[in-house]
Amino acid sequence: MNLGVCYYPEHWPRERWPLDAQHMREAGISIVRIAEFAWALMEPSQGKYDWTWLDEAIQVLVAEGHEIVLCTPTAAPPAWLIQSHPDILPVDEDGRRLRFGSRRHYCPNNPTFIKHTEKIVQAMAERYGNHPSVIGWQIDNEFACYIPRCYCDICAEKFREWLKEKYGTMETLNEAWGTNFWSQNYSGWAQIEPPNLTVAEPNPSHVLDYYRFFSDTWVAYQDIQISNLQSRISKHQFITHNIIASLTDIDYYDLAKNLDLISWDSYPTGYAEMGGDDLYFPGEIRPEYSYDLGDPMITGFFHSLTRGLKGAPFWIMEHQTGMINWSRTNTGVRPGALRLWTWQALASGAEAVVYFRWGASRFGLEQHHSGLRVHDGGPDVGYGDLLSMKSEQELMEKIGAEPLKASIALLVNYDDLWAINHQPHREGFNYFRYLFVFYRACQRLGLNVDLVSQEANWNEYKILLAPMAHLGFSQLAHKLSVFASQGGSVMLGIRSGFKTPSNVVTDQPLPGEFKDIVGAEVAQWHALPSGVSYPLQSEILSSCGEVTFWAESLIPEPGTNVLASYTNEPFANNAAITQKKLGKGLIYYFGIYPSLDQASTFVGYLASQHEIGLLDDLPPGLIAIARGDATLLFNFTDKALNTRIQGHDIQVAPRDLKIFNGAAL
Amino acid sequence: MNLGVCYYPEHWPRERWPLDAQHMREAGISIVRIAEFAWALMEPSQGKYDWTWLDEAIQVLVAEGHEIVLCTPTAAPPAWLIQSHPDILPVDEDGRRLRFGSRRHYCPNNPTFIKHTEKIVQAMAERYGNHPSVIGWQIDNEFACYIPRCYCDICAEKFREWLKEKYGTMETLNEAWGTNFWSQNYSGWAQIEPPNLTVAEPNPSHVLDYYRFFSDTWVAYQDIQISNLQSRISKHQFITHNIIASLTDIDYYDLAKNLDLISWDSYPTGYAEMGGDDLYFPGEIRPEYSYDLGDPMITGFFHSLTRGLKGAPFWIMEHQTGMINWSRTNTGVRPGALRLWTWQALASGAEAVVYFRWGASRFGLEQHHSGLRVHDGGPDVGYGDLLSMKSEQELMEKIGAEPLKASIALLVNYDDLWAINHQPHREGFNYFRYLFVFYRACQRLGLNVDLVSQEANWNEYKILLAPMAHLGFSQLAHKLSVFASQGGSVMLGIRSGFKTPSNVVTDQPLPGEFKDIVGAEVAQWHALPSGVSYPLQSEILSSCGEVTFWAESLIPEPGTNVLASYTNEPFANNAAITQKKLGKGLIYYFGIYPSLDQASTFVGYLASQHEIGLLDDLPPGLIAIARGDATLLFNFTDKALNTRIQGHDIQVAPRDLKIFNGAAL
Amino acid sequence: MNLGVCYYPEHWPRERWPLDAQHMREAGISIVRIAEFAWALMEPSQGKYDWTWLDEAIQVLVAEGHEIVLCTPTAAPPAWLIQSHPDILPVDEDGRRLRFGSRRHYCPNNPTFIKHTEKIVQAMAERYGNHPSVIGWQIDNEFACYIPRCYCDICAEKFREWLKEKYGTMETLNEAWGTNFWSQNYSGWAQIEPPNLTVAEPNPSHVLDYYRFFSDTWVAYQDIQISNLQSRISKHQFITHNIIASLTDIDYYDLAKNLDLISWDSYPTGYAEMGGDDLYFPGEIRPEYSYDLGDPMITGFFHSLTRGLKGAPFWIMEHQTGMINWSRTNTGVRPGALRLWTWQALASGAEAVVYFRWGASRFGLEQHHSGLRVHDGGPDVGYGDLLSMKSEQELMEKIGAEPLKASIALLVNYDDLWAINHQPHREGFNYFRYLFVFYRACQRLGLNVDLVSQEANWNEYKILLAPMAHLGFSQLAHKLSVFASQGGSVMLGIRSGFKTPSNVVTDQPLPGEFKDIVGAEVAQWHALPSGVSYPLQSEILSSCGEVTFWAESLIPEPGTNVLASYTNEPFANNAAITQKKLGKGLIYYFGIYPSLDQASTFVGYLASQHEIGLLDDLPPGLIAIARGDATLLFNFTDKALNTRIQGHDIQVAPRDLKIFNGAAL
Repeated sequence: MNLGVCYYPEHWPRERWPLDAQHMREAGISIVRIAEFAWALMEPSQGKYDWTWLDEAIQVLVAEGHEIVLCTPTAAPPAWLIQSHPDILPVDEDGRRLRFGSRRHYCPNNPTFIKHTEKIVQAMAERYGNHPSVIGWQIDNEFACYIPRCYCDICAEKFREWLKEKYGTMETLNEAWGTNFWSQNYSGWAQIEPPNLTVAEPNPSHVLDYYRFFSDTWVAYQDIQISNLQSRISKHQFITHNIIASLTDIDYYDLAKNLDLISWDSYPTGYAEMGGDDLYFPGEIRPEYSYDLGDPMITGFFHSLTRGLKGAPFWIMEHQTGMINWSRTNTGVRPGALRLWTWQALASGAEAVVYFRWGASRFGLEQHHSGLRVHDGGPDVGYGDLLSMKSEQELMEKIGAEPLKASIALLVNYDDLWAINHQPHREGFNYFRYLFVFYRACQRLGLNVDLVSQEANWNEYKILLAPMAHLGFSQLAHKLSVFASQGGSVMLGIRSGFKTPSNVVTDQPLPGEFKDIVGAEVAQWHALPSGVSYPLQSEILSSCGEVTFWAESLIPEPGTNVLASYTNEPFANNAAITQKKLGKGLIYYFGIYPSLDQASTFVGYLASQHEIGLLDDLPPGLIAIARGDATLLFNFTDKALNTRIQGHDIQVAPRDLKIFNGAAL
Repeated sequence: MNLGVCYYPEHWPRERWPLDAQHMREAGISIVRIAEFAWALMEPSQGKYDWTWLDEAIQVLVAEGHEIVLCTPTAAPPAWLIQSHPDILPVDEDGRRLRFGSRRHYCPNNPTFIKHTEKIVQAMAERYGNHPSVIGWQIDNEFACYIPRCYCDICAEKFREWLKEKYGTMETLNEAWGTNFWSQNYSGWAQIEPPNLTVAEPNPSHVLDYYRFFSDTWVAYQDIQISNLQSRISKHQFITHNIIASLTDIDYYDLAKNLDLISWDSYPTGYAEMGGDDLYFPGEIRPEYSYDLGDPMITGFFHSLTRGLKGAPFWIMEHQTGMINWSRTNTGVRPGALRLWTWQALASGAEAVVYFRWGASRFGLEQHHSGLRVHDGGPDVGYGDLLSMKSEQELMEKIGAEPLKASIALLVNYDDLWAINHQPHREGFNYFRYLFVFYRACQRLGLNVDLVSQEANWNEYKILLAPMAHLGFSQLAHKLSVFASQGGSVMLGIRSGFKTPSNVVTDQPLPGEFKDIVGAEVAQWHALPSGVSYPLQSEILSSCGEVTFWAESLIPEPGTNVLASYTNEPFANNAAITQKKLGKGLIYYFGIYPSLDQASTFVGYLASQHEIGLLDDLPPGLIAIARGDATLLFNFTDKALNTRIQGHDIQVAPRDLKIFNGAAL
Repeated sequence: MNLGVCYYPEHWPRERWPLDAQHMREAGISIVRIAEFAWALMEPSQGKYDWTWLDEAIQVLVAEGHEIVLCTPTAAPPAWLIQSHPDILPVDEDGRRLRFGSRRHYCPNNPTFIKHTEKIVQAMAERYGNHPSVIGWQIDNEFACYIPRCYCDICAEKFREWLKEKYGTMETLNEAWGTNFWSQNYSGWAQIEPPNLTVAEPNPSHVLDYYRFFSDTWVAYQDIQISNLQSRISKHQFITHNIIASLTDIDYYDLAKNLDLISWDSYPTGYAEMGGDDLYFPGEIRPEYSYDLGDPMITGFFHSLTRGLKGAPFWIMEHQTGMINWSRTNTGVRPGALRLWTWQALASGAEAVVYFRWGASRFGLEQHHSGLRVHDGGPDVGYGDLLSMKSEQELMEKIGAEPLKASIALLVNYDDLWAINHQPHREGFNYFRYLFVFYRACQRLGLNVDLVSQEANWNEYKILLAPMAHLGFSQLAHKLSVFASQGGSVMLGIRSGFKTPSNVVTDQPLPGEFKDIVGAEVAQWHALPSGVSYPLQSEILSSCGEVTFWAESLIPEPGTNVLASYTNEPFANNAAITQKKLGKGLIYYFGIYPSLDQASTFVGYLASQHEIGLLDDLPPGLIAIARGDATLLFNFTDKALNTRIQGHDIQVAPRDLKIFNGAAL
């Protein structure tokens, strides 16, 4: 386990640098990320570079044994560049040209900006690409934050080129988008605009293509930086980007593809307070400890998402150390929080945790954001945690070396997410919210679960949950059927196969491309308002209770089993959950929006069929992660919690962790 | 009763057309509305028309015996037109020029757009104006939806011309608007702008005139289409427009005037979920069945409003068949809903119901909107209802031929609505919300009620409710007094006569122009916050309880009776409701914002004085509509409901209807 | 006590003026404010003045013995001016150029507008500057209302000049703002824009300087009018401006400096309903009587704020008389309200109360705003109150002549307010909300309290409360220590000394510049979410209960007393409130966000140490204000209330007042 810290030497007097470097080392830190956002200091005026401060900073840090991660500074183009080329500034969805004065103030399609991007990246790479202590590069910072998509004239033109490339002819595009609807037929490429500022809502196919185009835009902009770096830096230096895992405007599988490793920025209390609204059901009770420990379900969900991007260990490139500045309450954290978080990250597959940030900033927007050191230079709470963790470094290495395996995979697809979130149909629908119920169901049962893409290799898994494969296509149906045929269990959930990848509705009976492998037809579906529920009965799944929010009425083909069915009108006697044998395996259609209990019951049923071990008496707030033969148990509550593993009674102290069948911690 | 369907042949393969036409016929459909929004297909490039597909579609439909309603496609100008004339695009209230990519993307004052409107309308009329199976024309679609008013420079100039026409001189305008307030005096027409983007709120007289100007604009734009059609089409073809009845930006009495018939688009569940917020009092309990049956009070209110526009039978040009795509929950509907809705529409004066739409659209914005057929072509729930209704066609004809009479009229005036809704004074005030209490009071008592204009012929009525005649003028006062003198009962409600038609406050004691006929003065009025109420006493009206929301303190002239008065300070002993004899009739001032109970008690009191028959034990959810000697009883609940009519005990099954003194259904 | 009224003769027929003037006199009014907003009538076209109507209005009023306050009409530039110079119109934060049609439609930095301002002010001053009955001038009206800051290109350029003036060099500005953060370094003044429309939130130092710049802009714009007036008018004429006391966009201490007297516009019910949301804690129970009497705590807070601006008696230039038009409910008021309000204003230091307005306006935006006379010219409720107060005029004079002294001062500073409100860190933080708890604590104990600036003379006070001296600097620390050394008690509250005046965080241990005088260090601070509280114990302060919302953990230096400390983790055993001896006095650090009970207990403790007399059994709704030896007791509730003063039992009737040790009222 490597520990690091984000450091901004340019924020502090040079005389403090050596002391900072020393304090870092003393706390077990060995990696320092620098130069992020420092464009104006590296290139104070066009083409005039100043490396002296950065050379010195690196030298000071290396002198204390640190390894360096350098950032390309493109998230913060300097004032002189914007002054001479104001068209670099992005145009928002309301059509307003934004201004200099914060960060991320650029359009990634702007050719002038791309030219200057290449120059600064080349200059940095040439200077530090062979530095033995520079171990890697972070490109830009948190792509798509604030302004996920630009709507300037250059973007409009690039969008047309992208469409031309994709569709070839006007006719193909008109056909794909269904422009016969509302007379939207285009007779020339120049007629197509970005889908903003329309009178009514725009064509969903048009929107989905703009989302794809802009995701591709970020990937392409990153690729420009990657190629400029790769041709200049040593083999020992990696290239990464630090994503906001909860942000859904980029297909992160695409973004991760050409990177050596992927990293994400983890802020547990912030994600719990802000992101929780999108992940929990409105009104659902949230963990009371999450206000200052974050929510391990949410943190873990994004660890798993990030790990799945390359199917490999990842980095935390920024990790919360204390209070943050961008949520509603921004509460402080207590001693011990950083240790729990770091261990959870490690157990979840992080091979490095880089803390954000060294000293709390005295100026700029993030004045109220804690670091490991307070504004006056003294240690903050997180620094104390680091000192207490020094004795655990060896154990961390040991656990980190254990294999991280899951028998269950949860399918994630950004095209599906964009299509659903743009047209939720029923208020409150949200792609990740629906997936998160199944993620929590697995965690509650003590089961490791991987979030994986449609393109991933699924061979290692026994169970594949595809809760909302909304845009169906034959290759996916085929891949799922092969997985099942070879002995796996596949679950397809509600709204699966409803549309084609063009974001138009299938003209086949539902679930469209999946109907044959599922062996059932979705005859009707009802969005249910709050207060209305449809009772279920189920012989196999006990206590299935009532369906709320969304219900689909299934008609099974002969030979398809009914696992749950509706008892009352309007869907009386029709199926809600079906099961069909396919080769050596089984394929399920799960036609309801489940409560956590319903999802847990169903996942438990699947797991027991595959004889996957459950920890079925995990109390709320106790999280289990298996690494090799070891099970790490995290207690996020303020009371000691007990569970039973393999016949052993185990107690975990409040806000502490214990490793079963490994070193007792 | 004629049943029809909205069909978009251009959304489906030609080979499916004959089967669609056949399936329509088999379900009792005989009218098909087509060509709406199909401009780009009829005129793929400027001046080049393609009628082949439309000719063929009409031929296929006529071959199955259908009659055709054609739509002018002007709600969706094609991309080529916008590309060459981007100034056609409307400018919204925030000053933003909107974009192509949805529908209704035009400014109705734009001369280029008007020129192209005339050309396409002329071309269509010349081609199909003598077609024997084309029975009528729908102009455009749902005027004023999304963008009720444009704020472009052309509109500004047209507004100035409209003002010049209305006021003649600058001095007259300054006087009418009271521009001495805040130094708003204009010394030249060019100084006047649309009232958007002002620093503080604009002058209400300025606003009301812009509302009037834009209502006139829509009427004028429609008139251009009407005159182009009328000079080219056969006498057997009618001209209509399909309104959104709940939309209040156009004076629909004006819009209806030059049309042969008026039609509206009825979506019961959508109006119940979305429109209910504006019609029910905040916090008022809403019918629990409305989530999938809609609210018959709301549906009925808009049926009555539409019928009153021309005082004649109307069409439903679009009628919901299943789930919709534009409300919050968009829940599905059950078998039987379409039958109840169709019967309620028939009973309320609809002479045709055209269902929206045939097949659910696979592409474009309305993918999640049901039709009579599902995406794969199979029958949806509504289609099943149609089949079940075929045996009732004869009975429908019989009931439809019975007279629809009401003894009570409810006065509606858009100038009053605009003035009140623009300046509600007390949060939550809303013109239709106040009227809707009285509408519900009548319905609860089993009384038919007509919504009528100030210009209508009131001779048929015994009771005239004018709940909020806000802008008073002498002709109206005279017309009301004549109505009362001849034996009628007139009720004027709160805030009546407060202003003049210029939207300035009267300089006379309140209720201004109505003070003499009412025989009482409104001395004070208090908006009451939530939790504050003023107790009332009333000898005639029992259980009047307390006044909430808004209370007016009346001082009766000698000879005016007090029906209710305040018992406590601050209005102690002043009147709340007065009654004055006027010739053979009575005129009331109703100085409170009533609860439904208070309104029902008062309406019941008026009705009993005129010996109008009440159904005073109608349980909630049971709706009664009288047609001739028959009474149609609709049960919208899930339980059987009982009532008593003319000594007979009647039970109506859940979600069913029964006709008393007509055929037992 | 002088009573006046706001009159708009231009809103009424000339024949009514003499009668109006007479009715005013009969009700005890002797001051009439006129000409506000009447620019277009005084200068109907450029350079052509029309004084006839104003001459005549003054003549008519003076004939009835009235004195005149004239207003410069610059809040409402005429249409002809805007038509020829549309760049006068302000640009809002969204970058939109606003339009003519309401009021305040100007950019105060626009040179054309300034030129025309000077001309109209000069013309008025030359005409009326020596009129014996014109006693004073009000400049403009409610600066900064609606559009607190303009963002046009002229403002951008003026901002750069202001920055150049302040910082001299680019380097100094970069250093002060900390532009090394996010590469915001400026290499030329032209690169600096107003801080709007940035992609993420802008640099807080940049924002604070724009706030300061725009506050200075308003002051400078006022100074232009002052100098044009002062050089032309007689000595007997005063110059004032009427502020919205609750508006926080101008440093009112600066604005008041060059005025002869300051005045504010008091609307008790409006401030209670709208402003209360910012002053009370979310969810805190508010007085039930406030809906039609306003909240005397809020009214009194702004009286004290205004009085502190010049440390002198003030005017109410507009005072509510009945219902208003700009809050949510706009409820009417009852007889007696105007009397209570007028007496409270008098007791709080107002030397004149000018009622808004004479007759309710028939046209323009304020049609629903009451005056002393209703629309038809008859008396409204407030007029009745005036008649009833005529017998009290002599007593008012007597009380008004008594000294108004306070032993407690509450420190107000707009730089602190802007810094905190722009970066509240914890949702719900608000500078005035925190101060208001302490204000209420004083009032609840019957203690007069002055709101004073950092620059004020504090010699008269025994206790100085500085609840949030956020931007610390050494002169303030020194002034506080001198005050304490001489025997005073100083309280510094949470977040004090956190930053420097550049709005960057101090690099010293907290509370920064105040650490030495406080004798304790703020080691940590936690924003607490709703539902989380930290228990306290306190030997001196009983029942301190629990800390909610915000808690700071203090480490006292040797010799510093701990008045309250935390009992549990995470701050267990650390101090929450400290006390340190300094010369003859004491200095406290108050590290919690108190409930009203906690603040009252603490203020009571301070007062008892200084032997300041408390009225500790004041029931809620009974307000006490001491003037000389007299105590005025106001009962705002609907029930008689009792209290005990100096051994006497006193009962005050509902909605009434009583003067103890003065004339019994």
